[in-house]
Amino acid sequence: MTKTLQVFKSRGLYKNLICNGRSHHFRVSELFQPLSVIPRNAKLKNLEDTSLSQKLLVNCGIINSRSNGMFALLPLGQRVIDKLTAIIDEEMRHIGAQKLLLPLLTSGHLWKKTGRWESTGEELMTTSDRHKNEHVLSPTHEEAITSLMSDIYPLSYRQLPLHLYQITSKFRDESRPRFGLLRCKEFLMKDLYTFDCSEAAASVTYNKIGSAYDRIFQRIGIPYLKVAGDSGNIGGSLSHEYHYQAAIGEDTLLLCNGCDFSTNATLVSSSDDAFCTRCGGQLNKTLAIEVGHTFLLGTKYSAPLKACYQNDKGKPELLHMGCYGLGVSRIMAAAVEVLSQGKCIRWPWILAPFKICIITPKKGSKEAGALSWVDHLAHVVNSIPGFQNDVIIDDRDSFTIGQRVMEAKKTGYPLVIVVGKGACASIPLFELIDTENGDSQMLSQTLLVNFLKQKLLEFKFNV
Amino acid sequence: MTKTLQVFKSRGLYKNLICNGRSHHFRVSELFQPLSVIPRNAKLKNLEDTSLSQKLLVNCGIINSRSNGMFALLPLGQRVIDKLTAIIDEEMRHIGAQKLLLPLLTSGHLWKKTGRWESTGEELMTTSDRHKNEHVLSPTHEEAITSLMSDIYPLSYRQLPLHLYQITSKFRDESRPRFGLLRCKEFLMKDLYTFDCSEAAASVTYNKIGSAYDRIFQRIGIPYLKVAGDSGNIGGSLSHEYHYQAAIGEDTLLLCNGCDFSTNATLVSSSDDAFCTRCGGQLNKTLAIEVGHTFLLGTKYSAPLKACYQNDKGKPELLHMGCYGLGVSRIMAAAVEVLSQGKCIRWPWILAPFKICIITPKKGSKEAGALSWVDHLAHVVNSIPGFQNDVIIDDRDSFTIGQRVMEAKKTGYPLVIVVGKGACASIPLFELIDTENGDSQMLSQTLLVNFLKQKLLEFKFNV
Repeated sequence: MTKTLQVFKSRGLYKNLICNGRSHHFRVSELFQPLSVIPRNAKLKNLEDTSLSQKLLVNCGIINSRSNGMFALLPLGQRVIDKLTAIIDEEMRHIGAQKLLLPLLTSGHLWKKTGRWESTGEELMTTSDRHKNEHVLSPTHEEAITSLMSDIYPLSYRQLPLHLYQITSKFRDESRPRFGLLRCKEFLMKDLYTFDCSEAAASVTYNKIGSAYDRIFQRIGIPYLKVAGDSGNIGGSLSHEYHYQAAIGEDTLLLCNGCDFSTNATLVSSSDDAFCTRCGGQLNKTLAIEVGHTFLLGTKYSAPLKACYQNDKGKPELLHMGCYGLGVSRIMAAAVEVLSQGKCIRWPWILAPFKICIITPKKGSKEAGALSWVDHLAHVVNSIPGFQNDVIIDDRDSFTIGQRVMEAKKTGYPLVIVVGKGACASIPLFELIDTENGDSQMLSQTLLVNFLKQKLLEFKFNV
Repeated sequence: MTKTLQVFKSRGLYKNLICNGRSHHFRVSELFQPLSVIPRNAKLKNLEDTSLSQKLLVNCGIINSRSNGMFALLPLGQRVIDKLTAIIDEEMRHIGAQKLLLPLLTSGHLWKKTGRWESTGEELMTTSDRHKNEHVLSPTHEEAITSLMSDIYPLSYRQLPLHLYQITSKFRDESRPRFGLLRCKEFLMKDLYTFDCSEAAASVTYNKIGSAYDRIFQRIGIPYLKVAGDSGNIGGSLSHEYHYQAAIGEDTLLLCNGCDFSTNATLVSSSDDAFCTRCGGQLNKTLAIEVGHTFLLGTKYSAPLKACYQNDKGKPELLHMGCYGLGVSRIMAAAVEVLSQGKCIRWPWILAPFKICIITPKKGSKEAGALSWVDHLAHVVNSIPGFQNDVIIDDRDSFTIGQRVMEAKKTGYPLVIVVGKGACASIPLFELIDTENGDSQMLSQTLLVNFLKQKLLEFKFNV
């Protein structure tokens, strides 16, 4: 045991390291953001189905294609996903949903019991272990969670409703992956499952989760459409889809201009897709990207897998279920698809990988003396609640300021602060660029801080 | 577009909901923690290799067995993993390591190039997509990340060293899974990969990451052993293992009682395992659970996958690599294995799913009037930095206080506050139970808060 004591003697050193390390700022020079440089003579495959979001995210080093339909999230992409995850976790906690983690592999026999082993078709990825047991690389976890509920019986009626969710990788063997993260083979999904004691109680829960999903999309801030959905292979009696309008979208939606009727076109026969059957108003078609889907499942899974709760008389009754998916990596790509134009990414404010990029003076330039302002400003901005850990310094001082401003715009940092000539004046001024509208203004440190605080207030007011 | 505007009109409502929701406390009555009740007449399979940690974690509803060697993390388990992840992320940020996410599936041809498709043997899980492309369900990601580095060439020498990591599910087709999360088929791993321009630079990086890993284990607080490691199938020139001492451990370590020599016994021939070859001291054998492993890889992966950086003359040179694993779900189980005794889980303070459990008065009892203290106390404790989001109320008032104290001890909440008879006195007193040592004392609210703050200080001082 002397050995283990030795290890603990180093604690003093540890405390110093911890304390010294907390002032660390992110720097572009250290960031792993491999920009995709397309060789001059490269022959581009015109037939490849890429999308604006795929091009921008790959070219800016946010994601990287690893093989057909599979992508790595690079550090900036990981930051966006972390922010989206934090929003989801917060809204889920708010409604009392609990996070868990199911194995990615689900026993094949469960999928056979529900009939989806056959009905899912070639999109289902499977594997066998050395003992010839079959497993599904789960595209969704209805079977897995329902079998869990079945195994833990008796679950009392007093414990219902239950809302359980996870955020994990999912698999779908697309015959033709395309548009980057919008249709790929491995993707991040947030899937929530609810359990109730009756159809009526399940309906109440269904609406409650729907409201929570509305809040998540409202916080992301991109206008979205919520329409009657196609239950497809998941099944159930009621379903809603969440969509972002986009020309590249693979779904056609019908929106009535007379009432609030809206639906996925697959639910309407082609003879009925011109006028609203409810109010007679005109139905407008629009293309859209599905980013979320909710299903009221009833007992479709609890019946074959015998998932029951114990009612107030101690008797088993089938659980009434709902399932609710959010395409986490798809939301990231769809947001970029909807907001961006040309060569510059635009992020929803709340998801931008960093909210502010501070650009240092060019090396050897007249304003190089202003360099000492950079760490100070970064510290000041970083101390404003709402900008914490959201500042990155572009310290690559062999590049011109113009080159770096352009790159910050491409990466989609909403605000850029340039520490340049103005910072050398008797009253130091800093250039603040709002990349969303291109506005630029010279501000003193005080006015800069005021502007940033105001920006946060506006944002809170708007969302 | 009228449709999308409608959606945004509900924002006012949203703001109210958000504000009202923030005072929510966690309650045991709502917690999804299915306790495993073993039927009286159950015949236990004596031959099954379970461990103390497996029994305790399953019985207390922290994890749940889904199929042979595969476990779900239930909400309390997920909370422990989230806390461990936060520590890892913090220490990684501290050394400038960047988080990313690689696909869980890695192209089989990369594993063939490095020779590991064959050498890994039956533990390697694989699948084929509909186009007959082979994929590995990655047990580790050396091939994946090295091929990424290869694809993004040119990476400048100026950008080195690079430290990239992820925390994801990994797969290993164990012939005989056992001991729960200690040897299972799907598990959570934190894997870090480093890239340097030379062997010397890679050695410096190797030591730096080793220090960061030391800090992570020091913060968890369980004495650990760091020994010369067996490189096995991963390969490389230098390797260290991190272990927790435990009778159930599957590794044998040799520790010299004369100098700081320590090694995995597999590295020493059986004729040399009694005396230290360095100082002649006696070698003591101990059994241990491996919880981390670091490897200095050299160019073992960068050579076959042609992963280069561009040197200062613009020429390509092979990257020098290191890889560093932490068994995230295994650390959780091993901690329970080492710390617990009998029927009660004991967590490291920093990983406990909740630090404090407040127990309400029994319904219909004399002290039921003290109920109004509960939310107040929860709010007060929750406001102490260091206890935020770390309080759970056991509000199941049909159970006696004694039953609930016992269950809180079993689940391993370090501190229990009982709102009972004393709370009805003219100067209300609350019982504080330290479940680690069994100490119990009656404290006024002021003394209770002081005690908790003192506890945090002691903890900071110790780690």
